[in-house]
Amino acid sequence: MPVYKAPTRDTRFVLNEVLKLEQYAALPSFESTSADMVDTIVEESGKFVAEVLAPLNLSGDQQGCTRHADGTVTTPAGFKQALALYREAGWGTLAAPEEFGGQGMPHVLGFVVEEFVSSANQAWGMYPGLTSGAISAILAKGSPEQQAKYLPKMIAGEWLGTMNLTEPHCGTDLGLIRTRAVPNADGTYAISGTKIFISAGDHDLTENIIHLVLAKTPGAPDSTKGISLFIVPKVLVNDDGSLGARNAVSCGSIEHKMGIHGNATCVMNYDGATGYMVGEENKGLAAMFIMMNAARLGVGIQGLSQAEAAYQNAVKYAQERRQGRALTGPAEPQEKADTLFVHPDVRRMLMDAKAFTEGMRAFYLWGGLLVDLSHKAATEEERGLADDMISLLTPVLKGYGTDKGFETCVQMQQVFGGHGYIEEWGMSQFVRDARIAQIYEGTNGIQAMDLVGRKLAQNGGRAVQAFFADVDAACTAAKTRPELAGLAAQVEKANGELKAATMWFMQNGMTNPNNVGAGAHHYMHIMGIVALGFMWLKMGTTAADALAAGAEDKAFYETKLTTARYYGERFTPDAGALRRKIEAGSEALMALPVEAFATA
Amino acid sequence: MPVYKAPTRDTRFVLNEVLKLEQYAALPSFESTSADMVDTIVEESGKFVAEVLAPLNLSGDQQGCTRHADGTVTTPAGFKQALALYREAGWGTLAAPEEFGGQGMPHVLGFVVEEFVSSANQAWGMYPGLTSGAISAILAKGSPEQQAKYLPKMIAGEWLGTMNLTEPHCGTDLGLIRTRAVPNADGTYAISGTKIFISAGDHDLTENIIHLVLAKTPGAPDSTKGISLFIVPKVLVNDDGSLGARNAVSCGSIEHKMGIHGNATCVMNYDGATGYMVGEENKGLAAMFIMMNAARLGVGIQGLSQAEAAYQNAVKYAQERRQGRALTGPAEPQEKADTLFVHPDVRRMLMDAKAFTEGMRAFYLWGGLLVDLSHKAATEEERGLADDMISLLTPVLKGYGTDKGFETCVQMQQVFGGHGYIEEWGMSQFVRDARIAQIYEGTNGIQAMDLVGRKLAQNGGRAVQAFFADVDAACTAAKTRPELAGLAAQVEKANGELKAATMWFMQNGMTNPNNVGAGAHHYMHIMGIVALGFMWLKMGTTAADALAAGAEDKAFYETKLTTARYYGERFTPDAGALRRKIEAGSEALMALPVEAFATA
Repeated sequence: MPVYKAPTRDTRFVLNEVLKLEQYAALPSFESTSADMVDTIVEESGKFVAEVLAPLNLSGDQQGCTRHADGTVTTPAGFKQALALYREAGWGTLAAPEEFGGQGMPHVLGFVVEEFVSSANQAWGMYPGLTSGAISAILAKGSPEQQAKYLPKMIAGEWLGTMNLTEPHCGTDLGLIRTRAVPNADGTYAISGTKIFISAGDHDLTENIIHLVLAKTPGAPDSTKGISLFIVPKVLVNDDGSLGARNAVSCGSIEHKMGIHGNATCVMNYDGATGYMVGEENKGLAAMFIMMNAARLGVGIQGLSQAEAAYQNAVKYAQERRQGRALTGPAEPQEKADTLFVHPDVRRMLMDAKAFTEGMRAFYLWGGLLVDLSHKAATEEERGLADDMISLLTPVLKGYGTDKGFETCVQMQQVFGGHGYIEEWGMSQFVRDARIAQIYEGTNGIQAMDLVGRKLAQNGGRAVQAFFADVDAACTAAKTRPELAGLAAQVEKANGELKAATMWFMQNGMTNPNNVGAGAHHYMHIMGIVALGFMWLKMGTTAADALAAGAEDKAFYETKLTTARYYGERFTPDAGALRRKIEAGSEALMALPVEAFATA
Repeated sequence: MPVYKAPTRDTRFVLNEVLKLEQYAALPSFESTSADMVDTIVEESGKFVAEVLAPLNLSGDQQGCTRHADGTVTTPAGFKQALALYREAGWGTLAAPEEFGGQGMPHVLGFVVEEFVSSANQAWGMYPGLTSGAISAILAKGSPEQQAKYLPKMIAGEWLGTMNLTEPHCGTDLGLIRTRAVPNADGTYAISGTKIFISAGDHDLTENIIHLVLAKTPGAPDSTKGISLFIVPKVLVNDDGSLGARNAVSCGSIEHKMGIHGNATCVMNYDGATGYMVGEENKGLAAMFIMMNAARLGVGIQGLSQAEAAYQNAVKYAQERRQGRALTGPAEPQEKADTLFVHPDVRRMLMDAKAFTEGMRAFYLWGGLLVDLSHKAATEEERGLADDMISLLTPVLKGYGTDKGFETCVQMQQVFGGHGYIEEWGMSQFVRDARIAQIYEGTNGIQAMDLVGRKLAQNGGRAVQAFFADVDAACTAAKTRPELAGLAAQVEKANGELKAATMWFMQNGMTNPNNVGAGAHHYMHIMGIVALGFMWLKMGTTAADALAAGAEDKAFYETKLTTARYYGERFTPDAGALRRKIEAGSEALMALPVEAFATA
């Protein structure tokens, strides 16, 4: 069975030493983020997922979910019990607001738990994970009554939530949705329509499920400006909080998917189900985006999560499997063969994974901190800066994080050779599970368009200019240090490619917006490369400082410096190639008529 | 259900117009390769696979193979009937020698059929495909008696063959094998041991299966120099050719794999089975490599095959699915939304696929022609040149072809958004099936080491120098043509990166061979980029000539020129980035102790 151990040392390094969470102790919800408290949360949540969730990962994939003739859905063995333990331990309430029963801790710590949970068992993690998205929409747009009625149970994990957006004919283009919401006399709505790809749409984990559903009221504009958001509970909730009648919503079927078999992906049928409008009529898209932004950050973490789990297993295999000899002569002549670790091409794959996962972890934890600071920083200016930055980086966290996360899983599977292709080793599952993260909550192509089409230009480009400046400052500072000068020059060069690509978009996007669209995906990747380079500069600086100060854990910090160097050597060169592709523009890309793609 | 149509027009273009097969009419086995004959074979084989094999692809994946309690193995419904039709139509005998019942046609035409078969149904195609490998070993090293006894039936497809190399503890490192071959008094051997990952190891398609098995005779050297090759029929064959007793070989279990479910991947148990030595004792590795080289070329084609099939389905989906609007304003205002085709990022994925599949097709067909010329060219010098070149390019065809083939399948799945993740659409299967090609018949890391560790230096680097010169000549010629000057400059630059990387290996590999190993995979990719660029120059030149001559099918040739331009713009920039990674060397890559990879 695949192994998993939460990377707690690395997480603590980023939180305490790189981001230095203690410096924010004066801010609300950061009061208790002493290094000790952080260490406890990190270690205990790591222990929990390794003991409770990881052992259910492979079996959950093999069993999958079952929809019975009566429409009920059963999750894999152990999933329900695991949720009870999770609830008991309070992991789901960590970053939720205290007024609704949460622990009011910073989001960045909630992100830590998300990473660990998802590494241990992505399919399971999606049950509470999607609930978080639903919670954030109700928190932001729900009425006080709705908040009081639903949030405490959802935060406690007694009820779970879902997001119902997609319909058979529309995914990305939500203006096309057909689900109708007809007002009832009592102020509620009768919801009718079919939603597809609804993760955790039905299951046996909780006695109620709170669906958040996009639908159109009669006469609503025929576009995204005509979408409203509704709470549609699986079981209606009485005013005293007790459960009432079963609502007219049911799971029509579950999908047979490439992966995440342990999560029930449902076709949901709404047959005049009772729904409660969240926020204003026709303003559902804004509420949806709140839910979606939370979900996108979570999905970005999933890219890392699967990569980390796959990496740990590949390291173990490379240590145990003996095959061939080192190119420099037998490393262990007394054995019949050396371990895979001696082979440079295996090392290449493992080092790529190490440099990506550690860099990505720092990146998403920085993102988590930015989420907190966007709400809790002391001044409006600081909150605005943090909000700018996380808004800019969200599509990069999601798009770059999941593209590279998937690629890393594929490489780690490759380390296993033929054994990687056999399901019982678990490497295929990491690949199959990681694949969905590039697709859902907005495909990575959509992330790229969000980045270049909306986020770059927001507030006159304030956010991206701040990003450039932050990276340049880190490069300038690091260039004076011999251990980091090489990396600093490489990241500065990559940042230069990013600036040049930004300029190219500005100069060529006005005359033809396809020039921006044609380079969007590449641009997102350059920004990911620069962002991780920025993180490696920060981590490298911290490590160099620790070594200079005579830190005890010398090997840890020296490893960081070597991995930082490797990152510069092996990740940053792509930025230049991507820029050249961007600057090719859209002419040849868009030139062919559709008929030219037909096979003759 | 997924669609598939053999790309016959493109294939005929490469064979007749680019490679100009007719020019070889004077060579043995090329006598009948008139353009008309080529067209007939291409069109008819394309029709066959679309009608007979493609409809069994998705169902074969869903049903998979079953091993029964008595050890027999059942293949998916329709597979056996399809083999009967394939046999009847004679597709398997195309390139086989006439003296054993084959049609004696050039290998390049056999490759065409391999591509089409594998696109239509990779799992099915592996049954006859592995037989080809077994046939080539017997052809090269078998005794006249063995050839007479086994080849006619195998070529006719009445019996199928397998390759038995891997054991639980050894894949790449065949020196470690433990299967024993003990001489019997009658000159036969008693074979005992366990082989794993044996594709088509047992099945219900034919009454006999001819296993080619690597084993060690008593006292053989404890390395690859102690390996011998044996024929071990599932059912012993009497001297009159009739079937005799069941041999002591059986399928112990079948693997649950990520893909190619329709092909039975078996654990094979040999319990003193009767085996017949092929060639000389302890010289089995050479025979194995003959089999393996044939298999590697076939696997390279599989990378293209899956990419082509996935591409066709993505094109269809992009034409039918309406979502969002063109960035330049509604393309079809009368519709509620435009098709996916208007979106530059979707175009990017489709154009990437188009440029790869067409370039790769030309590359492998050139490879097929080289195989023929290495045997059939008029002079020894020409045969030697062709042999040099195909020997150099085989790891590139396999490694680059399958890496990019898989990547293309993933991108084509991405075009489908959420629907790509659902098994019934078939896109997941293309991804899952394509994945194995990067692993089997030598992982792509092994291909890369074969390229840089063996092929580059062979005969003093004669082959790679010839490759550089051929590419440069094509660039020089194309630079004078306005339609191709841009591409020519880009390919020349990429070829320059390849030369520089080669030089860097020469200068840095002697002092530390890890410097070569650390860059091997990147080097293989640069060579793939240059090889496809070379092909695009050839195809572009042919297209430009045709247009200048006033060819009828103007749209076809103009499309080629646009795709050639796109290839230059979007594929060649990676060569520079890869070179920079190579020149980073192995220092940081190999620096960390194994403990530094442990999760703490």
